[in-house]
Amino acid sequence: MGVEKTPNLILVYDIVDDRKRAKIADICLDYGLDRIQFSAFVGWLIPSKQKELMIKIKRTLGKSPGNVQLVPICAEDWQKRKIIDQREQR
Amino acid sequence: MGVEKTPNLILVYDIVDDRKRAKIADICLDYGLDRIQFSAFVGWLIPSKQKELMIKIKRTLGKSPGNVQLVPICAEDWQKRKIIDQREQR
Repeated sequence: MGVEKTPNLILVYDIVDDRKRAKIADICLDYGLDRIQFSAFVGWLIPSKQKELMIKIKRTLGKSPGNVQLVPICAEDWQKRKIIDQREQR
Repeated sequence: MGVEKTPNLILVYDIVDDRKRAKIADICLDYGLDRIQFSAFVGWLIPSKQKELMIKIKRTLGKSPGNVQLVPICAEDWQKRKIIDQREQR
């Protein structure tokens, strides 16, 4: 593991096909992204790697329906994010 | 409808309870956000409204499990986002 960097992107997806969604999740993890929700990842990638990741996702998706959005996030915006996180109470 | 503004935030959620998720989606729409995916919205809100929205979401969620993240996005980053959008082929 490298040094932890402040994420510079969020990637969110809606992918219908379960198998393709699982494959694309694996690709995101391979690129070092962290899964913050079922269909949302954050991480740090230089622009050329962001482009490469989106190309791989598109190739994996093939002709299946899906919407994938990668949004760069600057450090200042990252610091200003707001989070609600509640776990199951037992 | 007001003038279309470049979104300055993305809001993503994982909410287990269907009824609460639907309510929270309605709240996001009431705040003028656009639903870009099943569990992702974008829109333009001043910081005080962003805070207010998260307070309403937290109140609506109650003690139910869920993860909600609101990330501000500056115009420069918004312009650099990358999108894959494929519809069902018939």
